[in-house]
Amino acid sequence: MTEAIHYSDPKALRLACRQGQWRSSTSGQCPGFVQANLAILPRDLAFDFLLFCHRNPRPCPVIEVTEPGDPILRETAHGADLRTDLPAYRVFRDGEVVEERTDLLDIWTDDLVGFLLGCSYTFDAVLEKSGFSLAHHAEGREPGVYVSNIDCRPAGRFKGPLIVSARAFAGDRVTEVVELTSRFRKTHGGPVYVGDPGELGIDLAKPDSEYGGFPLHLEKGQVPLFWACGVTPQAVARASRVPLMITHKPGHMFVSDLTVDEVLRD
Amino acid sequence: MTEAIHYSDPKALRLACRQGQWRSSTSGQCPGFVQANLAILPRDLAFDFLLFCHRNPRPCPVIEVTEPGDPILRETAHGADLRTDLPAYRVFRDGEVVEERTDLLDIWTDDLVGFLLGCSYTFDAVLEKSGFSLAHHAEGREPGVYVSNIDCRPAGRFKGPLIVSARAFAGDRVTEVVELTSRFRKTHGGPVYVGDPGELGIDLAKPDSEYGGFPLHLEKGQVPLFWACGVTPQAVARASRVPLMITHKPGHMFVSDLTVDEVLRD
Repeated sequence: MTEAIHYSDPKALRLACRQGQWRSSTSGQCPGFVQANLAILPRDLAFDFLLFCHRNPRPCPVIEVTEPGDPILRETAHGADLRTDLPAYRVFRDGEVVEERTDLLDIWTDDLVGFLLGCSYTFDAVLEKSGFSLAHHAEGREPGVYVSNIDCRPAGRFKGPLIVSARAFAGDRVTEVVELTSRFRKTHGGPVYVGDPGELGIDLAKPDSEYGGFPLHLEKGQVPLFWACGVTPQAVARASRVPLMITHKPGHMFVSDLTVDEVLRD
Repeated sequence: MTEAIHYSDPKALRLACRQGQWRSSTSGQCPGFVQANLAILPRDLAFDFLLFCHRNPRPCPVIEVTEPGDPILRETAHGADLRTDLPAYRVFRDGEVVEERTDLLDIWTDDLVGFLLGCSYTFDAVLEKSGFSLAHHAEGREPGVYVSNIDCRPAGRFKGPLIVSARAFAGDRVTEVVELTSRFRKTHGGPVYVGDPGELGIDLAKPDSEYGGFPLHLEKGQVPLFWACGVTPQAVARASRVPLMITHKPGHMFVSDLTVDEVLRD
């Protein structure tokens, strides 16, 4: 199955989310636009979380932070509403997912701060434009996402494992992929690891059940590349037993109006 | 007068500060090591300030943030003490400098958070090593520092003007200087402006009286280059009338154990 592009315009996709017409993964949608992970936290946890992002810029490249209590974005998608403009959300309480929802209208409060973090779906489109084929796109799926045995650098009450997404490329094209993705610091940059998944404690056949994605199969001559992944805050919510964190549902990203060219080298 | 290098080892310089034997500018000291601006804030202002830094990475490139209440550094100079290891400090209350001090031992409290921000003195050493002569070093001085007419992006209760440092180079070497300094994102990166000082509201003959430095004179064929400066938080403390911010005295930086090679492209 080849994945269909249903939306090319982020505003149209966000409106469809708001109106309940799109509840699916955003993988492959709106190619050329920056997609983002979401983490929403109470104001009193915001410093520790922003410091966590600063100390872990590969999994948590911050692209916008909202004013406390204000769900409206000003920078990456002027006027977009964090409460309604993603396809699906998760609510973590004390480190557990207590519900999945399609909007946050009745649980938004005046002390919530939203953090948008870059997403590797952004450079997937760039890779495809550069002639790379991505197995997960061919299957209409998200890339395989795995919990690594690497710990993030803690900050305040936030700690947890580094989550990674995996893609495979022919050995003679790895340099090109590294160079290309490294230009996108705001969408995780270059791979954090290249080679043996076992060294990261990962079995490629088994993407993590919480974060999902299409299991990566290696073709002859291919090497697996691992990028830091923006669902890391969700693993951190679990490990740190954070009282409240609201996130996107994995794969169901915020799609911004920023173009990939606008985040080059940012 | 050619500036003398008194110290080549950051640990020795920090010890001299701690023991009261060095109260001078650190411009030109410990070439090859990363120097840093200091801002210390109460915990309840830390999120707004870190967000201000995130939104203004050119003047405020964060290189280390301490744990609330702990004056000891862990990353850029293991075991260094923010209370004693700089030559001189300023204390701002409600936006005014209320005192300059040589240590913070009796005013340190359990809720203070320290922020170290990169400093352009770091790349001055790199420029000299690459064969550029710097007029301010030849005079044994700091570079001229000026208040620009550009506003920083506000965050929470922090707002204020962008402060810049100025250096002049021959027109045929500007590209080299831009390329070289752009590699050091953590020490302000490349210039924020090249050319007419009037456009920034700056008179080169008059460095700001608060921030000082050697007035920049243009030789024939030279163009002025302006870098975002890490005393910007001090201007922000004034403009925002912050209840409490403790900083280094301008020119009297924290000298870390990080080498310039360690912050390349960081």
